[in-house]
Amino acid sequence: MWVGMVIGTLVATPKDESLIGFKLLFVQPKKFYQKQIRTPVVAVDTIGAGTGETVLVVEGSSARHLIGKPQGAVDAAIIGIINNIELNKYLLEE
Amino acid sequence: MWVGMVIGTLVATPKDESLIGFKLLFVQPKKFYQKQIRTPVVAVDTIGAGTGETVLVVEGSSARHLIGKPQGAVDAAIIGIINNIELNKYLLEE
Amino acid sequence: MWVGMVIGTLVATPKDESLIGFKLLFVQPKKFYQKQIRTPVVAVDTIGAGTGETVLVVEGSSARHLIGKPQGAVDAAIIGIINNIELNKYLLEE
Amino acid sequence: MWVGMVIGTLVATPKDESLIGFKLLFVQPKKFYQKQIRTPVVAVDTIGAGTGETVLVVEGSSARHLIGKPQGAVDAAIIGIINNIELNKYLLEE
Amino acid sequence: MWVGMVIGTLVATPKDESLIGFKLLFVQPKKFYQKQIRTPVVAVDTIGAGTGETVLVVEGSSARHLIGKPQGAVDAAIIGIINNIELNKYLLEE
Repeated sequence: MWVGMVIGTLVATPKDESLIGFKLLFVQPKKFYQKQIRTPVVAVDTIGAGTGETVLVVEGSSARHLIGKPQGAVDAAIIGIINNIELNKYLLEE
Repeated sequence: MWVGMVIGTLVATPKDESLIGFKLLFVQPKKFYQKQIRTPVVAVDTIGAGTGETVLVVEGSSARHLIGKPQGAVDAAIIGIINNIELNKYLLEE
Repeated sequence: MWVGMVIGTLVATPKDESLIGFKLLFVQPKKFYQKQIRTPVVAVDTIGAGTGETVLVVEGSSARHLIGKPQGAVDAAIIGIINNIELNKYLLEE
Repeated sequence: MWVGMVIGTLVATPKDESLIGFKLLFVQPKKFYQKQIRTPVVAVDTIGAGTGETVLVVEGSSARHLIGKPQGAVDAAIIGIINNIELNKYLLEE
Repeated sequence: MWVGMVIGTLVATPKDESLIGFKLLFVQPKKFYQKQIRTPVVAVDTIGAGTGETVLVVEGSSARHLIGKPQGAVDAAIIGIINNIELNKYLLEE
């Protein structure tokens, strides 16, 4: 899983019917100590997240299974809202 | 999922029979605020998209399940046409 | 899926028995308008492709399902030979 | 699988119920002889690892299957604590 | 699949019980004509490979299925020892 910030929303019409009723959010992966930003990912919100919140994202087939639709058109989902991160910076490689 | 623009089409003969009847489109992932362009992906169109449209793409096993063929030779599918994107640029990391 | 050129062949002995009877080809992903070349991938040929041909490659669990062996040791397969690509260059981001 | 160091912890509320009872750890992939650091990954701990330990991480659907929940919201898991690595540096490409 | 060289071994205790009895090897992906080296991957050996050998590696859910354990903690496996590679260098993009 990875940590990112919800930076926006997206509306698609038409869209696959498995997505109907789900909110689609743009999530920018957090850079931490890296130099390059990464591309925002579109994730299904399963937890009630909103713009500006730091969230936990799962990718791949686990995201599809999560929405309970075996044919679901989903490969990324928000599965948590993050309250606290504790990193030991002395352990980071440079 | 990710957002891209349909930039072209592709014809393959022979091709795996699971692909027969599906349109194959080139989709260029949108860069947003990144520096590098990314390689176009070949996606199956399940929604009726055309060149010049901004679309939502799902990858991996979810794309295969979507076309309803358990043995389908598919790892990317267009699942929506995007009407509107709202990004809060102030939330972006630089 | 992605587009590449068959640039060579590979012989492995011993190899997993699910691969016996399949041809293994090196496929170089096409760069299009990118600067960096990408590493050649080893793909199972399911279509009768040969060196010098431009092919369509599927990756992940879809490639395994394709060869009809649930325990198959495969994560990339050639699923089509490409005759024609039409790209609208004016739509490309730079 | 890949090798990394546990560099911290993370608390998420609310979170998907499949994660309840599991510890979420930040793992920094080890660079070895590379120049760029990679982004820390959030992995479920299945082995009892702690900050400062070098661990083995599995990704993708294998991580989900590991926690024994077919609908689990998991795509990365710590599956071992590493005691010893022996690399033959003369075999490395530069 | 991809081609790499076995550059070392790894011992993990404790480790997930699905790994017991399997040898874990570090495999460095071969660069071919690329500039950047890639990070070594930890793969389960299913074929009897050793340090210094050039091997074929499969990733993802195919690697898990290969060891015959539906809950196996595996996302990469060595599936062949490579005897011969024939590349047509004139077909490479630069």
